[in-house]
Amino acid sequence: MYNHSRGVQEQQADELMSKYIKHYEAKTGRSRQLFMHASSLLPSGTSHNIRYFEPYPFFARMASGKYIYDVDGNAYTDYWMGHWSLILGHAPKVVVDVLRERVVEGTIFGTVNEHALRLAEIINRLMPRAEMLRFVSTGSEATMYAVRLARAYTGKRIVAKIEGGWHGFNTDLMHSVNYPFDEPEGKGMLEEEMRYLVALPFNDVESSISILNKVKDDLACIIVEPLLGGAGCIPADKEYLHVLQEYARKSSALFILDEIVTGFRLSLHGAQQIYSLEPDLFTLGKIAGGGLPIGVVCGLKEVMNLADVRGKGKWDRVSIGGGTYSENPLSMSAGAAVLEYLASNRDIYERLEMLGDEVRRGIDRVMVDHGIRVKSTGMGSLFLTHFLKDGVEDVRSARDAVQCDLRMQRLYHFALLSMYDIFFLPNKLGAISIEHDSIDIRRLVDASERIASDMASM
Amino acid sequence: MYNHSRGVQEQQADELMSKYIKHYEAKTGRSRQLFMHASSLLPSGTSHNIRYFEPYPFFARMASGKYIYDVDGNAYTDYWMGHWSLILGHAPKVVVDVLRERVVEGTIFGTVNEHALRLAEIINRLMPRAEMLRFVSTGSEATMYAVRLARAYTGKRIVAKIEGGWHGFNTDLMHSVNYPFDEPEGKGMLEEEMRYLVALPFNDVESSISILNKVKDDLACIIVEPLLGGAGCIPADKEYLHVLQEYARKSSALFILDEIVTGFRLSLHGAQQIYSLEPDLFTLGKIAGGGLPIGVVCGLKEVMNLADVRGKGKWDRVSIGGGTYSENPLSMSAGAAVLEYLASNRDIYERLEMLGDEVRRGIDRVMVDHGIRVKSTGMGSLFLTHFLKDGVEDVRSARDAVQCDLRMQRLYHFALLSMYDIFFLPNKLGAISIEHDSIDIRRLVDASERIASDMASM
Repeated sequence: MYNHSRGVQEQQADELMSKYIKHYEAKTGRSRQLFMHASSLLPSGTSHNIRYFEPYPFFARMASGKYIYDVDGNAYTDYWMGHWSLILGHAPKVVVDVLRERVVEGTIFGTVNEHALRLAEIINRLMPRAEMLRFVSTGSEATMYAVRLARAYTGKRIVAKIEGGWHGFNTDLMHSVNYPFDEPEGKGMLEEEMRYLVALPFNDVESSISILNKVKDDLACIIVEPLLGGAGCIPADKEYLHVLQEYARKSSALFILDEIVTGFRLSLHGAQQIYSLEPDLFTLGKIAGGGLPIGVVCGLKEVMNLADVRGKGKWDRVSIGGGTYSENPLSMSAGAAVLEYLASNRDIYERLEMLGDEVRRGIDRVMVDHGIRVKSTGMGSLFLTHFLKDGVEDVRSARDAVQCDLRMQRLYHFALLSMYDIFFLPNKLGAISIEHDSIDIRRLVDASERIASDMASM
Repeated sequence: MYNHSRGVQEQQADELMSKYIKHYEAKTGRSRQLFMHASSLLPSGTSHNIRYFEPYPFFARMASGKYIYDVDGNAYTDYWMGHWSLILGHAPKVVVDVLRERVVEGTIFGTVNEHALRLAEIINRLMPRAEMLRFVSTGSEATMYAVRLARAYTGKRIVAKIEGGWHGFNTDLMHSVNYPFDEPEGKGMLEEEMRYLVALPFNDVESSISILNKVKDDLACIIVEPLLGGAGCIPADKEYLHVLQEYARKSSALFILDEIVTGFRLSLHGAQQIYSLEPDLFTLGKIAGGGLPIGVVCGLKEVMNLADVRGKGKWDRVSIGGGTYSENPLSMSAGAAVLEYLASNRDIYERLEMLGDEVRRGIDRVMVDHGIRVKSTGMGSLFLTHFLKDGVEDVRSARDAVQCDLRMQRLYHFALLSMYDIFFLPNKLGAISIEHDSIDIRRLVDASERIASDMASM
């Protein structure tokens, strides 16, 4: 049973993990070789820290629909879905068709072009608060520019973000991302860079207000993900977001919604529609680029227009946007193809939500049946199963999430990968695409049951 | 004659500009319409400030080889070449072939993959100082991470950059980019963010040393482009770079070479080979991605390994790399295709250099023939024609470049676009690709002569 004393349980979890690792190693020999080589060329053998996991990540060769294939010929049902950027699955026909046509016509013009204008029109039509926008190449750039715009517009300095909130690797927001939240996010960052950042505990109105009250006069913006992504797939309470929006208004600060994960994922019009929010600025990425590099800074005309260069000296404007690859025709065309597909097939959101509910309920049920206390959080097609520990009853913030049993969560995700060819990046949320169906959800729940059984007999 | 009194000359330059604008407007009606619409959706009608020019930029529709085509059906001989990222011209066969194959196999895996490993191997082979590297998605991210690594490695704070040096829009290096160099680079940036940045006058050993001496004890790194790009296409003196490298060594600071523009452009092994430099860290982009989004942080193992996550808490490592799109298979495959082509066709560099010398000499000759004092700077396939003013004899720094006649330079570039279908982004350097030949250079020089004649009769 899962309720053994801690030491015994840990030892048995290790034994279970050894069994899973053995199985994984047996089928990923080529990946193992490549990883050893990669480790000599790339720190941790990868270009993105979260992509490393023990004993080594498999090396992808290709991906199609709901499957990702590794160099050893394994086919995994993929719930990582390119950092959740693929809502139509891998290499959907609409994207492949437009890219095969487009690559012949040039991959980068370095100028304004009709493909960018078309994507701008679509986003403007689907997201009413995107009165104006600028394309960049990554989400990290988008949030950096949103903060810069807010400071310029308000003439104030403090940025309030959420404890555990993830807005990319830019220096401007690299604070209070990973636990322990009060510690710096690694070496090489300046104390001064963090001086104007404060962190609010998610979904905790009272504490958040009390922190905001201390910085109100110098508050430039509040930036928040409507669903806490990297920190645990945790939806915000409607009231919480409205309180933050209202607080920003009252304090002459901007309210920035980071919809890089949720935009076109939770609904065709973003989380801002679901939550009835009116952000001054918001950011997009992921799905907006159709699986190609993109970031988008969107917002009200009077804020965005600070970036207009016409008739202004450099001291009079906000330097945002830019980047060699911004508005490149491939990202623009792939993004437009996906968004147009979504706009013409609005019913997919209902279906994705149904599958999401099915998976959250299904996993929780089979775990509980085996005496394992879990809580699958999420919304729509996004979900993550947390393993509750004594004293943690619910998962409503990043702090709750890290107080759960991350080791068991890792064990669970790795078991899915190793034993059942189902891919979650360990400890990270999963995303359902339109390529997934009820049978996949059934298979995932069944696999979870068998893993629960393994865990229960620990 | 060009030597009229200032007022008269300006008026006549305006008249000439009006004539060119009229001609441009007559052939770009559709672009004009699109730009008016774009201006309502994107600040300045674009996502990148430098892409705006008066009266409006043309809207690209496609590009192939040395040509870029606009929505009105004009074909321009392109010397902008996607921010100089295209050394094989637009949509070269090696890139088209690999992308058409690859897009069917998925555009983003979000995991380590064999395509990334292959590009890492190629870069490591071609650039010996890339002992280890990490892929990111933009140049701006690459330089931000290089600075973070340097601060982490040295435990020091000050970053010395070059006056006018351009390393992307990241907050970390947005200082002393545009003239006036001492003024902030726009609104929304914090004073604190600039406190640890100092700017060195390019190619001025004495002044640079004297500035460095003041910050020596807290100096984390010196970051420099071997050829000042955005600030005027100005090659560094060999001695200057060696003095900086030596100074960094002696001060226990890192020497960072920003080769985003020059890597695989000036030689197959970068400017670092030409200049016999041994940077501790260097950055790549542009050509390395084969025309798709990329940035690369490269450097010595003992520095890069600070980013390894294995067995480290967040406070023990440097958070660099990452980004949803890092090591995506399209950028990786396009980059590998181009670099392999270059490695198998090393003679192209000699040819590009010949064409570069031809164009620099040719333009300067026809201008001088008409009594117009110019100096075309550059190196290899990169070049920019500066219009000298009284008192400016040579162009060896960003300060020299801004003291030249930028208005005449704009007039010249715009005339090429309007009257001769030759595209330079006004005031920006040009790049020759292997698709350009002697006849193109001849045509460019001839067009320059006719413009010189227009100017001379002002």
